[in-house]
Amino acid sequence: MCNTGAFVSGRGFIVIDVGIVGGTGYTGVELLRLLSGHPQANLKVITSRSEKGVAVADMYPNLRGHCDLHFSEPDIEQLGACDIVFFATPHGVAQAMMSELMQGSARIIDLSADFRIKDIALWEEWYGQSHGAPDQVAEAVYGLPEINRAAIASARLVAAPGCYPTSVLLGLLPLLEQNLVDVSDLVANCASGVSGAGRQAKIDNLFAEMGESFKAYGVSGHRHLPEIEQELALMAGKPVSLTFVPHLLPIVRGIHATLYANLLQQDVDLQTVYETRYADEPFVDVLPAGSHPQTRTVKGSNMLNLAVHRPPGGNKAVILSVEDNLVKGASGQAVQCMNIMCGFEETAGLQSVGLVP
Amino acid sequence: MCNTGAFVSGRGFIVIDVGIVGGTGYTGVELLRLLSGHPQANLKVITSRSEKGVAVADMYPNLRGHCDLHFSEPDIEQLGACDIVFFATPHGVAQAMMSELMQGSARIIDLSADFRIKDIALWEEWYGQSHGAPDQVAEAVYGLPEINRAAIASARLVAAPGCYPTSVLLGLLPLLEQNLVDVSDLVANCASGVSGAGRQAKIDNLFAEMGESFKAYGVSGHRHLPEIEQELALMAGKPVSLTFVPHLLPIVRGIHATLYANLLQQDVDLQTVYETRYADEPFVDVLPAGSHPQTRTVKGSNMLNLAVHRPPGGNKAVILSVEDNLVKGASGQAVQCMNIMCGFEETAGLQSVGLVP
Amino acid sequence: MCNTGAFVSGRGFIVIDVGIVGGTGYTGVELLRLLSGHPQANLKVITSRSEKGVAVADMYPNLRGHCDLHFSEPDIEQLGACDIVFFATPHGVAQAMMSELMQGSARIIDLSADFRIKDIALWEEWYGQSHGAPDQVAEAVYGLPEINRAAIASARLVAAPGCYPTSVLLGLLPLLEQNLVDVSDLVANCASGVSGAGRQAKIDNLFAEMGESFKAYGVSGHRHLPEIEQELALMAGKPVSLTFVPHLLPIVRGIHATLYANLLQQDVDLQTVYETRYADEPFVDVLPAGSHPQTRTVKGSNMLNLAVHRPPGGNKAVILSVEDNLVKGASGQAVQCMNIMCGFEETAGLQSVGLVP
Amino acid sequence: MCNTGAFVSGRGFIVIDVGIVGGTGYTGVELLRLLSGHPQANLKVITSRSEKGVAVADMYPNLRGHCDLHFSEPDIEQLGACDIVFFATPHGVAQAMMSELMQGSARIIDLSADFRIKDIALWEEWYGQSHGAPDQVAEAVYGLPEINRAAIASARLVAAPGCYPTSVLLGLLPLLEQNLVDVSDLVANCASGVSGAGRQAKIDNLFAEMGESFKAYGVSGHRHLPEIEQELALMAGKPVSLTFVPHLLPIVRGIHATLYANLLQQDVDLQTVYETRYADEPFVDVLPAGSHPQTRTVKGSNMLNLAVHRPPGGNKAVILSVEDNLVKGASGQAVQCMNIMCGFEETAGLQSVGLVP
Repeated sequence: MCNTGAFVSGRGFIVIDVGIVGGTGYTGVELLRLLSGHPQANLKVITSRSEKGVAVADMYPNLRGHCDLHFSEPDIEQLGACDIVFFATPHGVAQAMMSELMQGSARIIDLSADFRIKDIALWEEWYGQSHGAPDQVAEAVYGLPEINRAAIASARLVAAPGCYPTSVLLGLLPLLEQNLVDVSDLVANCASGVSGAGRQAKIDNLFAEMGESFKAYGVSGHRHLPEIEQELALMAGKPVSLTFVPHLLPIVRGIHATLYANLLQQDVDLQTVYETRYADEPFVDVLPAGSHPQTRTVKGSNMLNLAVHRPPGGNKAVILSVEDNLVKGASGQAVQCMNIMCGFEETAGLQSVGLVP
Repeated sequence: MCNTGAFVSGRGFIVIDVGIVGGTGYTGVELLRLLSGHPQANLKVITSRSEKGVAVADMYPNLRGHCDLHFSEPDIEQLGACDIVFFATPHGVAQAMMSELMQGSARIIDLSADFRIKDIALWEEWYGQSHGAPDQVAEAVYGLPEINRAAIASARLVAAPGCYPTSVLLGLLPLLEQNLVDVSDLVANCASGVSGAGRQAKIDNLFAEMGESFKAYGVSGHRHLPEIEQELALMAGKPVSLTFVPHLLPIVRGIHATLYANLLQQDVDLQTVYETRYADEPFVDVLPAGSHPQTRTVKGSNMLNLAVHRPPGGNKAVILSVEDNLVKGASGQAVQCMNIMCGFEETAGLQSVGLVP
Repeated sequence: MCNTGAFVSGRGFIVIDVGIVGGTGYTGVELLRLLSGHPQANLKVITSRSEKGVAVADMYPNLRGHCDLHFSEPDIEQLGACDIVFFATPHGVAQAMMSELMQGSARIIDLSADFRIKDIALWEEWYGQSHGAPDQVAEAVYGLPEINRAAIASARLVAAPGCYPTSVLLGLLPLLEQNLVDVSDLVANCASGVSGAGRQAKIDNLFAEMGESFKAYGVSGHRHLPEIEQELALMAGKPVSLTFVPHLLPIVRGIHATLYANLLQQDVDLQTVYETRYADEPFVDVLPAGSHPQTRTVKGSNMLNLAVHRPPGGNKAVILSVEDNLVKGASGQAVQCMNIMCGFEETAGLQSVGLVP
Repeated sequence: MCNTGAFVSGRGFIVIDVGIVGGTGYTGVELLRLLSGHPQANLKVITSRSEKGVAVADMYPNLRGHCDLHFSEPDIEQLGACDIVFFATPHGVAQAMMSELMQGSARIIDLSADFRIKDIALWEEWYGQSHGAPDQVAEAVYGLPEINRAAIASARLVAAPGCYPTSVLLGLLPLLEQNLVDVSDLVANCASGVSGAGRQAKIDNLFAEMGESFKAYGVSGHRHLPEIEQELALMAGKPVSLTFVPHLLPIVRGIHATLYANLLQQDVDLQTVYETRYADEPFVDVLPAGSHPQTRTVKGSNMLNLAVHRPPGGNKAVILSVEDNLVKGASGQAVQCMNIMCGFEETAGLQSVGLVP
């Protein structure tokens, strides 16, 4: 048990039991970091087949003194007894366990790609395998609170958005909701720190390969594209066409999206449009006009920062969007969903300030 | 006022008023980050002559929503009305204001070098100027809780240790207290991230100068040497001789000290010595035997991690010590001192987990 | 004198005398690196007012044994006696010396922005000062060999292109020359290593500010925009409209341009178009279809690498372009111009292989 | 064939045929970079079992236009027909092929650890396997030109030194040769860029694990220790005791060694000792007194830079030593040995200037 439960329950708060499937990757350890400081979450079980029996704090010494759990084999009964179960696994894993798990009462937040795409054939095309739990797809709620807050509150199964999609969707949302741009020609030029690629031993992600270098990748097609286009189309109420080019940054954390769209009319005050749309959102911050957000500003924080630009002499809107890919782009957003699902303060456990410098 | 006061006072905690002199540098913004999450600190005033009138959150957007103060000119009366005043200024500044400020009731925690060295002539030699408040030097308590907790609790003026000294002193403390090593031949080979050099426009600290590079500096003498030797001598009860070589790391945060000492006897279990000495310390963590601590493990955290090694075939003890230079090496330690001075939980506001990865 | 002259003249090559004005910045030291290995260049004089009398190799120890010159005050007579004079100075400096210098016989290669823009009013608007040598502007040849080789060969004054312009212009050239895209909607999303900002003590460029971070800058207008649009219009034979968004990478060297354009027709084989256009260019390398060039591949090299992409499902061409901003983006291109002007092999002194890893 | 042969032979130089076994790792590609610019080396064959048939330039695009070879399976006959064969393989590989290969006339330069340690039992203890070619060990010459130039010139088999050993041995050589220090208490505190760990898919070497972090490793014993102690003892003429602590730097290239020794006498001018010892060495540069060498100064260059310090108030000598681990620490030194073996200018192909910034 993580050392938050006793402390918190003394204050009379409701405390829920939480399980994590697949806790050895970067989204897993980030969940641990966030939940260990959450006043209403009691971490009950964390699974990893490969690290079974290992103390979490031996693998991640930053958690020494904050978590005394050991990794265990996934056990449906044990997981099913939790209030909330997070999946921080590669795609395919949550699908395989989902129908059995959902026979119990636990509510699920899946951080993988398994339940994000509604069109099962499209999912199977991009992920190169047949879908393991097609019956649950329709039920899954896309876990972006800024568009789906009410549905998340009552969801049994939440599909937490990908890191790139979060930065792009929140960047374009006001433009599409209000039909301000030509949705047939959207460009998302994105750059991500390498923690987005996960904790896998791949030569391409070695420091010696990536240090002092920068490149695009996946220009011919990245798995986040269909997810982004699905959600953009829902916002716009019609199909959209997006050119999405991801790049790999020589940093650990952070996503920066530079978004280009052609305005349908000139006389619109974009700054006001954005400020109004996000006025009540606790984790979307529209910076003052003329700002250039830095990824470091939100390092370790659940904030997404936006800046709105209109370069002179044309009809382009240029939107800059930054987030920590492991927080608002993954584990922080998942905790935000948990807070909504459980009726907690939406910001509970998510108030830490970006680590600057 | 930072947005913590109301929230906390509702819980019936004591809340103190805090002032910061010189809040624009890295130790200043780090104090703001830590204090904005502290349940018992109400940030009342933050001064900066150069940025007078500027909103703190305009300069540091990571603090948007967490701090609505503006920088103001230093005003003795306003500062004097605070319970605790931090100086996050270059050396010389605290000295100039200290005698006037100490006529009031505020208690002071100075993060600069002004009151660390007891031998005023020595201070003047290393800092190249005459001391501006020699009368307060004797009264100042060296703010390393692990050796001075009781004195800190009742201090009017605390001189918070330098970043290098903290990593070296806590690394060598058990050896010297127990007379286990030859104190005439100590070596501290240290490496620091560049935030330790402060937020100053110096060519040497440009990314283009430091990126993909590494170097030693100050081999012929660094200002932290006399401070370290003073405290080591107090631990050992006799003069010591230290060779101290700092290096500049191409990272933002983090200090790593590799400490070498010759053991006076072979049959000592150093692991037990260290674990015993620090068993009750909330912010010193002795890792399991054989560990190699990483600076990232403590990034953003107030923890200092130690590992004890005895390379085969000789009588050397090799101690590895890591800290975040801006937290345990500066602002976090200052807040730890504040907690002790005010009778708060020593860990209040300092429980965040290191940001890994 | 740099130690190349004697060695080379023994082989019967022509050796020219070279001067550099403003040799202390990054383009200056890069010129020194390249020229010290050039078989036909004899470095005669290097000027710097601020470092007058200092040995070049004391300031840049990598040149110890390769260059025994000292910085001197600029002297028109001494410079005028050189065959080629490079200006590696901030804008404004070359203008101030140009009319006097051009009364002699030296030929000039200016790496600054002083003579790139033909429209003097436009130059004055973007650079915020009146132009100091408007009479020489018309005579200046834009030093991009791939479009102006013949004119460069006979030029008295060459205006070497900026770093961003080189990456964008060579990336778009085949599309515009052949009228393949809609020139009213071009997007250049570029990212540069910080050496492009020069060796100036600016807080924004500190390692502690830039490390582990990424941001856009100058979205509302960057000085390289009018230069790029001028040259694109010449290529297209009509005005063009470009949205140019530069970003700052936490690396020292390297520019990556991601270029977006809408194709006017679908049935064009872009790979062949690019390979054909650049078949005879020694320093433009079109990578195999599907490639994602990395900036490190050209680190220290004069090569610019291109890759051509057509994301499925739309009419976008996406061109990826990488260069070393200090070599093909500045000093290497200037040396390439020198080779052309002097009738040397165009690749002389420029054949070093990119430093990988 | 790499494109150097034809060009060079026109000048009447002797050109030798060169083979490389195991060309896909970092020392392999660095050999290719250096040899492709060498006027007297004709690269004839490069082997890799795993990449058989792949064009070298497809794997390393920086070599496009500089090398048109494909990787092939190792073939003793083909290798035996070369004048010089480099092994850029993990330990164990060269041993397995050596006795057969040495029946031919090729001369061998092994960059691996296979033939560095004279004491076969010691080798087997540190490398955990039995030695595959013990008969060749005695014949192998340790390839550090600064101590073994004559023996290298006539060697059949050269064991090129490790990267750490080169930096430590050249740093301590003058002190030990002249019996100036206590050899029973030497400390080498070293830090290496991660390319020294090779191009292997290990989680520990991921950017996401290493970025913005620093750590020691192998404190209880690193395989370079017995190699260093063997050579130090030969220099000193007696056994030595070294405490060697390597650290992992978040940079790609570069080693920095900080060396500590206790002087036996006070009145020695170390600066002169070092300058005198290395006066005729083309690749060891003793910097002016008071210098702090940077690893970037020698990036891509075969130079090793030294600085000599005597901190006030003690009898410590502190020597700072920097090299590029892939050049002077590996492939450059191997080419230097080749030049000596073949009677070429020792600096042929090795004159490039360090890439600064």
